[in-house]
Amino acid sequence: MTRRSVVGVMGSGKKKLEDGEWDIAFALGQAIASEDWVLLSGGRKEGVMDAVNAGAEGGLRIGILPNEDETEISEHVDVAIVTGMGNARNNINILSSDVVIACGDGGAGTASEIALALKSKKHVVLLNPSVESRNFFSKIDKSRVHVTNSVKETMKLLINEFKLKPKSQKS
Amino acid sequence: MTRRSVVGVMGSGKKKLEDGEWDIAFALGQAIASEDWVLLSGGRKEGVMDAVNAGAEGGLRIGILPNEDETEISEHVDVAIVTGMGNARNNINILSSDVVIACGDGGAGTASEIALALKSKKHVVLLNPSVESRNFFSKIDKSRVHVTNSVKETMKLLINEFKLKPKSQKS
Amino acid sequence: MTRRSVVGVMGSGKKKLEDGEWDIAFALGQAIASEDWVLLSGGRKEGVMDAVNAGAEGGLRIGILPNEDETEISEHVDVAIVTGMGNARNNINILSSDVVIACGDGGAGTASEIALALKSKKHVVLLNPSVESRNFFSKIDKSRVHVTNSVKETMKLLINEFKLKPKSQKS
Amino acid sequence: MTRRSVVGVMGSGKKKLEDGEWDIAFALGQAIASEDWVLLSGGRKEGVMDAVNAGAEGGLRIGILPNEDETEISEHVDVAIVTGMGNARNNINILSSDVVIACGDGGAGTASEIALALKSKKHVVLLNPSVESRNFFSKIDKSRVHVTNSVKETMKLLINEFKLKPKSQKS
Repeated sequence: MTRRSVVGVMGSGKKKLEDGEWDIAFALGQAIASEDWVLLSGGRKEGVMDAVNAGAEGGLRIGILPNEDETEISEHVDVAIVTGMGNARNNINILSSDVVIACGDGGAGTASEIALALKSKKHVVLLNPSVESRNFFSKIDKSRVHVTNSVKETMKLLINEFKLKPKSQKS
Repeated sequence: MTRRSVVGVMGSGKKKLEDGEWDIAFALGQAIASEDWVLLSGGRKEGVMDAVNAGAEGGLRIGILPNEDETEISEHVDVAIVTGMGNARNNINILSSDVVIACGDGGAGTASEIALALKSKKHVVLLNPSVESRNFFSKIDKSRVHVTNSVKETMKLLINEFKLKPKSQKS
Repeated sequence: MTRRSVVGVMGSGKKKLEDGEWDIAFALGQAIASEDWVLLSGGRKEGVMDAVNAGAEGGLRIGILPNEDETEISEHVDVAIVTGMGNARNNINILSSDVVIACGDGGAGTASEIALALKSKKHVVLLNPSVESRNFFSKIDKSRVHVTNSVKETMKLLINEFKLKPKSQKS
Repeated sequence: MTRRSVVGVMGSGKKKLEDGEWDIAFALGQAIASEDWVLLSGGRKEGVMDAVNAGAEGGLRIGILPNEDETEISEHVDVAIVTGMGNARNNINILSSDVVIACGDGGAGTASEIALALKSKKHVVLLNPSVESRNFFSKIDKSRVHVTNSVKETMKLLINEFKLKPKSQKS
């Protein structure tokens, strides 16, 4: 069995992230790559998608693209899965991830991914969510929604609670 | 041009609705059919999907089914569009609807549909939402989220604000 | 049980059909509408899709559109199901049809639909296929591939072999 | 730019391949991995999908799964992209591949993938096709259908004609 652990990172696709948002997504990507987990994202060269892939340099980065447009793919993606199905691809992001992390506040796209994850009984980590997001999704499924406030706390959760194998324990 | 107006109604897929929830979804279906609008829903024989289709008897009712399983289709659907793509079909519900109504509080599936609608710049009516839902989605896109508390108010909105043609004005 | 029979018609999407091709697709649409069956097609305003919908005037015509582009929808479609998923929507055409008819020779898109139909164990009628198409698909699944040479012969097959209820027998 | 070349291999999903078929798919997987190209396949543990992934041991093997069923995934896949959309996922296989190879005769599923590839103007290599397949697809698009009779010949085509970068030339 050679299957690798896949961590899905979702987040704002807006063109300009604020400095703090970019840094956190970048650090999250670094942390994921450092454990040899596969980073799965929406693959576009905007916002959290681009930042997290930039951070995960050296690891394996798979982007699940909504459209066939080559020009919208992040330069930091190793493999582009081109779906050509627009936002319907959000469900593939979810089904393919062992754990889903919503990084930052996000917009409508991220909200759809959190909701689809809960619909499919996946655990979701909300890293620095808004109060409204936290309240709304906790109401839908308290047992699968986890709120964190740092990359470090997120990584602990992935290793200790979701039992993704850390690199140090691999054979 | 023969295209008909399509109203998409989303809502809880749970097996047992409470009496009030069933009645409202049923009345909404009746109102939609009475204007000769096409009712589009998720098509399953559970919850709001079943109730709204039962109410729209006499109108045209199209169900966009997630799976290939014949046994899960509502008996009140006239045409079943079988997608075989699970919850990824939620995006088709949205793209095919002129206006989207989330009827009642809903769960994760409904939340994903509201979010996908806002992502695609569609107007969404939240009919009797929870406070958390109202707060969350209004924060994402205040200009496209509309809250109503009755079927009557909802119908007014569809006719007066979204300009769906009422039957009385048709040639 | 109010579900209506759905006949899917696939065929060339090229801009200009030859006269004979247009006439046959138009006549097929007429015949389908005259039996009160729902016509399902790819919904674009080109080729066989447009011709068959034009012919089915008076019946119910549902178009399963690949893209979100309003300008590519046939004017002869009553309800547009907008998938936004490109050619992946071809599988929905198949799964939603009780019987699939490939009208004329078609191109790559039609070929994919015939193949997807056979993959899903659906019966396919090839109306005026090329020799190559007939030979290829018969080799894949002889028992589900049916070749006809006229609309009349096709309608007989639908009523007598596939048992779609003709209008005259409806209660 | 870190994007890697992706070679999509399609083929029969039947449980038991004949010895010769297994060997060829296995050898094709070996050849693809030896050039450091990403192997993309349907990811199931049957037929050509399983054989080509077994052969590509040591390379990167991505499986695009139709269903959510964990038990049907090939053990030789490194990353599983779970689409949950049945055969509609065939279009993703095509859009994500730089070149598509149909390995052996295949069935209805493979036929749909060849057709979808031609629909999307992708080049397709038919490795050991049947006469019927060769005739049918060459008629649809002669300029994009390439017939080969060995893995060696196929690899030459990929390097010399489609200009996939061989490992020896990488920086």
